Amino acid sequence: MAVIGTGLIGTSVALAARQEGVTVYLSDRNEHHARTAAALGAGLIARPPEPVDLAVIAVPPSEVGPVLVQQQALGTADCYTDVAAVKHAPEQHFLQHASEPSRYVGGHPMAGSERSGPRAGRADLFRGRAWVLTPSAYSGEAALARGLELLEICGAAPVLMDSRLHDERMALTSHVPHVMASLTAARLVGTPDQVPVLVGRGFLDTTRIARGGSTLWSDILKANAASIAAVLTELQDDLARLVEALMVLAAGDESETALVTVEDLLERGIAGLTGISETGPDTEMLWVTALAEQAALRQRVSEPTVQQ
Amino acid sequence: MAVIGTGLIGTSVALAARQEGVTVYLSDRNEHHARTAAALGAGLIARPPEPVDLAVIAVPPSEVGPVLVQQQALGTADCYTDVAAVKHAPEQHFLQHASEPSRYVGGHPMAGSERSGPRAGRADLFRGRAWVLTPSAYSGEAALARGLELLEICGAAPVLMDSRLHDERMALTSHVPHVMASLTAARLVGTPDQVPVLVGRGFLDTTRIARGGSTLWSDILKANAASIAAVLTELQDDLARLVEALMVLAAGDESETALVTVEDLLERGIAGLTGISETGPDTEMLWVTALAEQAALRQRVSEPTVQQ
Repeated sequence: MAVIGTGLIGTSVALAARQEGVTVYLSDRNEHHARTAAALGAGLIARPPEPVDLAVIAVPPSEVGPVLVQQQALGTADCYTDVAAVKHAPEQHFLQHASEPSRYVGGHPMAGSERSGPRAGRADLFRGRAWVLTPSAYSGEAALARGLELLEICGAAPVLMDSRLHDERMALTSHVPHVMASLTAARLVGTPDQVPVLVGRGFLDTTRIARGGSTLWSDILKANAASIAAVLTELQDDLARLVEALMVLAAGDESETALVTVEDLLERGIAGLTGISETGPDTEMLWVTALAEQAALRQRVSEPTVQQ
Repeated sequence: MAVIGTGLIGTSVALAARQEGVTVYLSDRNEHHARTAAALGAGLIARPPEPVDLAVIAVPPSEVGPVLVQQQALGTADCYTDVAAVKHAPEQHFLQHASEPSRYVGGHPMAGSERSGPRAGRADLFRGRAWVLTPSAYSGEAALARGLELLEICGAAPVLMDSRLHDERMALTSHVPHVMASLTAARLVGTPDQVPVLVGRGFLDTTRIARGGSTLWSDILKANAASIAAVLTELQDDLARLVEALMVLAAGDESETALVTVEDLLERGIAGLTGISETGPDTEMLWVTALAEQAALRQRVSEPTVQQ
């Protein structure tokens, strides 16, 4: 296996693979990161002497497409995947420029940390977590099989999705939550005395992800800007109604409409979390579903019609 | 001690006091709650045979003022405190209607849970947490001393603050974060397939508090509506700028201004969390500070000038 990019995710993938006895070749344009990952036991800093089975591109979303094309041109691997939080734009870039589009399947593990860099890497980061794979119309059987093998090595469970749907869903479940955490935390800038002692577990939990690296996250927000803007626009309507209601209540008016507006938002918040388990996904069920979908795809891609 | 209201906080206070050997009299207009709390070992369901040292009013913010006045009229206790998340409005109600305003000090422990009711109560809920006390200009020495004693029993550390400042700060550190969690979670209402498997730890943490009871929380938002609306209005400006920037980026324009807007928000989010520790407050330091402030207040209130 080759791991291109030895940040938190790349290093964690490499550590998991090493634990299963896989030979891992590491590279990172930040040599210090690569050396740290290697020192942590994540693999060797070297070009693979011959094409490896799978190259995992673990770079920020905006670089995934170009790095994929470049690595395929170099002949680094038989198949390729990536781990970026945004899937559609990198896929489109690759499909437009790749020599062999069938050798790639996009990927995104549902695991991370507000910490970054190789030192935050952990072999068990993905254990029991969902990991989205986004086979395109051009993805071949081999690429998908290699992708599933990677997930097995990492102890994760597959969710097969279209790249565009993935991005829409992730706007809801990850990118907008990050924006909201940043908006909340930003209110404390310049706020003086006593705030640090007045924060409880609730505040810490709602804002923890806002500590994440701003470079990576601005790249994510940019790469999925349309989906995120669509969700935030709806959210702005809710927020405007709430602020209006609070202003009525602040004026001392016992307005039933204003109270209902406040209660309605709180209740929709509770309703939105219905069915969302705190304990993580049913990984066995995810494997069953994904393997069935793989069989269906195998049928479809047995005679791939690659158009560029 | 008397505990009026045996929800999560009231029951936890009572359990902590029982653990220190304090006799606790429980009451709740919801008899089922009181019986549950008593069954959990939180105390006796009875009117105190004679005035107790301290009555802890653990009811929703909008009821604190009236319940305080009523309990003082009944002669339940020598001194009174409460535990509501909003302090200024209850204090004003009490000061306007109380026979002996010097016998009350407002309180608010920085601890809670998205769970509610007596079964969620825990004797150690407040251990190592900050607990705000809001002595008014009329609060007497005895009330403050009883309040501090309560915190000691609960293992919490005092922060002395003006009630209005408390409410402004809590808008930032608790009430707005709750609104943000609800707004985020509300986006998932009616969202179909695959969302539950796509949520990671980040989503769960940012939205956990939104699972909290909508009745209590609409009461809190109403009681602190002005401070919350002020913070949210600022936040709306940030959000509007961000959405505009995302729309520019979504249109494929490589706008430097739009990128800077996105990065600026993320960086201000990180900056807002500077100095906010994940490990909770330095409780020893809080006690030192509070005892010094108590000594200063003792000086001031040695000859209370009560005006009604």
